[in-house]
Amino acid sequence: MRRSFRIVIEYDGAEFHGWQVQPDTRTVQGELEKAIETMTKRKVRVQGASRTDAGVHAEGQVANFTLEGESPNPEKLLASLNALTGEDVAVVAIEQVPEDFCARSGVVMKTYRYRIWNDRFRSPLRRRTHLHVPSRLDVDGMREAARHLEGEHDFTSFRAADCTDPRPVRAVRRCAVHRQGPEITVEVKGKGFLKNMVRIMAGTLILVGKGRLAPGDIPSILEARDRTKAGPTVPAHGLVLVSIEYG
Amino acid sequence: MRRSFRIVIEYDGAEFHGWQVQPDTRTVQGELEKAIETMTKRKVRVQGASRTDAGVHAEGQVANFTLEGESPNPEKLLASLNALTGEDVAVVAIEQVPEDFCARSGVVMKTYRYRIWNDRFRSPLRRRTHLHVPSRLDVDGMREAARHLEGEHDFTSFRAADCTDPRPVRAVRRCAVHRQGPEITVEVKGKGFLKNMVRIMAGTLILVGKGRLAPGDIPSILEARDRTKAGPTVPAHGLVLVSIEYG
Repeated sequence: MRRSFRIVIEYDGAEFHGWQVQPDTRTVQGELEKAIETMTKRKVRVQGASRTDAGVHAEGQVANFTLEGESPNPEKLLASLNALTGEDVAVVAIEQVPEDFCARSGVVMKTYRYRIWNDRFRSPLRRRTHLHVPSRLDVDGMREAARHLEGEHDFTSFRAADCTDPRPVRAVRRCAVHRQGPEITVEVKGKGFLKNMVRIMAGTLILVGKGRLAPGDIPSILEARDRTKAGPTVPAHGLVLVSIEYG
Repeated sequence: MRRSFRIVIEYDGAEFHGWQVQPDTRTVQGELEKAIETMTKRKVRVQGASRTDAGVHAEGQVANFTLEGESPNPEKLLASLNALTGEDVAVVAIEQVPEDFCARSGVVMKTYRYRIWNDRFRSPLRRRTHLHVPSRLDVDGMREAARHLEGEHDFTSFRAADCTDPRPVRAVRRCAVHRQGPEITVEVKGKGFLKNMVRIMAGTLILVGKGRLAPGDIPSILEARDRTKAGPTVPAHGLVLVSIEYG
């Protein structure tokens, strides 16, 4: 008897060295695999949709795993997982899926959100979730720049220098900038992203907001295929993986 | 030359033993007084409007203090204070005020908010700001109960057993319950509150939400003047001092 499950996971990324299992460090994948092993006495691989970096949060990470032999019903499984994981991670949904379901390859759309606290003063209550930018940002300019990032492009200028993906073309379905009082959010949707891509997009939009780049500079930054032309990789704590959609 | 200032302070209460100075523990008042002493080389008393308990957060605590001799202009003062305080506290506004301004006695209205995460699953990203209540709460019942708490009452049943205030009558100007998805907020307004009063009000409303008290039980709980008749003092981390208004 084999049963496969899809789970949705929320986590505070601050105390994790990212999603992916690594020896001798605490990772979300490792935390979940350890919990399942404690429960079932078997080593099980938990396959996540996104390998979020150290410090990145998730409201809706998705993962799948398969259990052999007798396994508890999904509700019991979920309760046990939540009892066995730290307070900074929780499984918030579970369902049984066909064994060929793959959280990584089946993705239709991922949504990320980057949050900025655009106020002269830092906000102690938002210091774990927002990047503080004290100088007033021009949101209209950021919106115009964001539109240039939408669509299918070679995002070589917008990926980590050590990113080794042989295919640097990605389709950004949406890049939207909202302001509500001092809070600015950059929401990015697409089927997939290169390493650090969303954080470099946000960092570049912030330079536009500061007037250090013009919205019309974005096409030439894309065309340059040169990481040094885009803005900085902004800190991980402002980023959250909001949700993942499947077909 | 003496100059008096009013400041607005935001803080994450988690790592503070409350507002009020105590020997050998970290408090918000102590943190601010230490910063002013570092800056001015003088011991200065910072008078806060609310003595928030350990763990309680603030978006808009208000305090006043007076500096003797040469003092920097308000903007410089504010920047220096923010450079000298920890990342979990920030001064977000400053203005010079008449020397007789008193942050405590001049209060016209205080607003507190208690936040509940009413979902089967705990939320890692809200664990520092929301009380997790897994069982579905009846918000209509909570609203009806909240109306009974509004107005002027003897709140003896709703204050800490060790509260020594000789006048237990307070006027609650507003007690409102909102739901937005799994988030329930209880907003309480009044000129002043007894020790733990807002947390006991929230704890009692939660018992109503669970069906363990009826909304119509509130008047007799008030009349009993007996702490054991009301609900529990819910944890501090769900409470935030939102704002304070002056005449």
